[in-house]
Amino acid sequence: MPVDLPPPNPAQLFPIAGVRIGVVQAGIRKADRKDLTVFLLDEGTSVGAAFTANRFCAAPVQVCQAHLAAGGQIRALLINTGNANAGTGADGLARARSTCEALAQRLGVSAQQVLPFSTGVIMEPLPSERIVAGLDAAIAAAGPAHWLDAAQGIMTTDTVPKAYGAQLPLSGRTVSITGISKGAGMIRPNMATMLGFIATDACIAPALLQPLARKLAQASFNRITVDGDTSTNDSLVLMASHQAGNLIIDSLDSADGQALYAGLLEVALKLAHAIVRDGEGATKFITVQVDGGANTEECSRVAYAIAHSPLVKTAFFASDPNLGRILAAVGYAGIADLDTDGIELFLDDVHVATRGGRNPAYQEAEGQRVMRQSEIRVRVDLGRGHASHTVWTCDLSLDYVRINADYRS
Amino acid sequence: MPVDLPPPNPAQLFPIAGVRIGVVQAGIRKADRKDLTVFLLDEGTSVGAAFTANRFCAAPVQVCQAHLAAGGQIRALLINTGNANAGTGADGLARARSTCEALAQRLGVSAQQVLPFSTGVIMEPLPSERIVAGLDAAIAAAGPAHWLDAAQGIMTTDTVPKAYGAQLPLSGRTVSITGISKGAGMIRPNMATMLGFIATDACIAPALLQPLARKLAQASFNRITVDGDTSTNDSLVLMASHQAGNLIIDSLDSADGQALYAGLLEVALKLAHAIVRDGEGATKFITVQVDGGANTEECSRVAYAIAHSPLVKTAFFASDPNLGRILAAVGYAGIADLDTDGIELFLDDVHVATRGGRNPAYQEAEGQRVMRQSEIRVRVDLGRGHASHTVWTCDLSLDYVRINADYRS
Repeated sequence: MPVDLPPPNPAQLFPIAGVRIGVVQAGIRKADRKDLTVFLLDEGTSVGAAFTANRFCAAPVQVCQAHLAAGGQIRALLINTGNANAGTGADGLARARSTCEALAQRLGVSAQQVLPFSTGVIMEPLPSERIVAGLDAAIAAAGPAHWLDAAQGIMTTDTVPKAYGAQLPLSGRTVSITGISKGAGMIRPNMATMLGFIATDACIAPALLQPLARKLAQASFNRITVDGDTSTNDSLVLMASHQAGNLIIDSLDSADGQALYAGLLEVALKLAHAIVRDGEGATKFITVQVDGGANTEECSRVAYAIAHSPLVKTAFFASDPNLGRILAAVGYAGIADLDTDGIELFLDDVHVATRGGRNPAYQEAEGQRVMRQSEIRVRVDLGRGHASHTVWTCDLSLDYVRINADYRS
Repeated sequence: MPVDLPPPNPAQLFPIAGVRIGVVQAGIRKADRKDLTVFLLDEGTSVGAAFTANRFCAAPVQVCQAHLAAGGQIRALLINTGNANAGTGADGLARARSTCEALAQRLGVSAQQVLPFSTGVIMEPLPSERIVAGLDAAIAAAGPAHWLDAAQGIMTTDTVPKAYGAQLPLSGRTVSITGISKGAGMIRPNMATMLGFIATDACIAPALLQPLARKLAQASFNRITVDGDTSTNDSLVLMASHQAGNLIIDSLDSADGQALYAGLLEVALKLAHAIVRDGEGATKFITVQVDGGANTEECSRVAYAIAHSPLVKTAFFASDPNLGRILAAVGYAGIADLDTDGIELFLDDVHVATRGGRNPAYQEAEGQRVMRQSEIRVRVDLGRGHASHTVWTCDLSLDYVRINADYRS
């Protein structure tokens, strides 16, 4: 059961002019499930993307990077679940390319205009022939209203589909933004997460798409973690079809640019948070906010030390205010000159530790009250400066172990 | 149930001339359990120690460092379980000092000649009055044959006591080495682990004790991890009573120095491995060996990325050869210029991956066979150079979560 995550609201998944989606069952790993998704993009659509920093980046990620670098217009995305096509060497690259070629041929474009994405088990050969066999049906099924189908079509250990949309007025027109994501385990994105797809019909200078995708990833997907494992396949794709009729946005610093970024960030954060809320075995949604750092980087280190500590995460699972575990994680986060006498720790509104030790006014019943909530904010003040950083994570439960001990069987 | 860890053999726990140990029940946290241990050291004994790198190092660790820095002879160790006296601020320091003073007074030495150690719950006030109340009984009980009692007296979530001894001939005399350790969770020592105490009667230049303690920690306790959480209280203490009558060792590079180091390392490794074998919820003992690195540091990063990955650890728990998870961990270990085409992966004798992808000759049944074993060696060759590093860890099981969700209740 995901944490406080309502199912996607179909009325909020706005069709994006210029973007059609087809989803079919191709039998890639399991029967009777949607596992093959194509995005067909009108001519003129611009695409930006951010990918995993894992050195074992999967074959489809390598192919995506090469196709984007080629500089042609991207006209289709091809996404399969059930197999990650990672750790598959030269054969994996050849299979990823062959699926792009097959789709490109059917669309009358070049293979370099197709971006491939895969998610699922690592180090098993991609059944590319099943993907190719499903393409005609996927193209035939393509339509503008299939965002929810696509969210279902990219799931692996996710328990619910993740989709979200927003609309905003720009220069007298209504601009729509709709996105989907997937992911529940192997989540500590380090560029973006596996997988997020966000489309808008906004008119925006094509050169802005790539920096915008990176900026969005940095502010959303790159701040979540379930288990600290950075996937081989993380990908975030941002598509703009330029069909909303708004005045073209050529700077993110303009009023319209800022409004569009705020809308995109709202969607990206909802999708990123949905991954944490549906994190494998999650029973709690935890915001870890670190203030008072000398710089953002050290705030981030402390936030991740807390968010990755199995002891902290099991304490949240148990609703046990065993909060010394949080102090211990702050202490080993790697700030060599940290003065622990300056540390303040809060759990929501409860002031747990002051000047590095237990707050004399702290009552364990108060900590217990907050720990029982399904959403909790941990706030640490390092007392060293004015930088801050926030990350989002979930607890470590018995079900996390059950899910990952059973995943392939 | 610890992994392949026989109970300590009392016949192998050699008394160390000059070292007496007293263990009593002081009711520090729970009734009816040994929780207070004193080591009484003859005049002339030398002591070296290594401590946690956690910036939130506990009050007793701070007091130990100050007392060692004062340069006087250490004449006693005072160890309590049930309370870590960490995250306790100025009050914790005062309480740690007060227990040293109480013991020193009874022994006719100065407080700076006593080293205090605490283990247990973090961020709760140390019940120092109960410790002081137990001192007379502990001193009265002190004797040379109580190593096993001490191993029991320092346990927290450990399921078995950890003790080991060795003897070796040096210049015609028999030198004895005996040690104890504890620890099962919050184990990723970064100087030494909470807690290891090793004593020898060897005659050795006192100035060598401190570098020897550090070197031993680096080669043993600093290479184990259960959950990646570096404790606030890690401490390794090495004591030499100089009573064996061997010719004094004034260099570790001499033949006798090398022989003594080998004996000490044997004891330290057994004690460190015992902590992993009894790691919280452990069902497997995993050796992670990384070869072919450009330097030891990058081998260590890769080894810890594998050893800390919750996905890798749950796969071991499930005996599931889902070995792409190991490649993914290698990929995110932080080697920016890693060429994954050079990676080889072995599971014991089974060659799983070659040149960054699945070995065509690999049969999953072979991987399955090794994964079912209780002891497994993961070997990664990075293909970049000649450096190596090895760490030891355990799997992540349902019981790890159960234990840490229940620890305080």
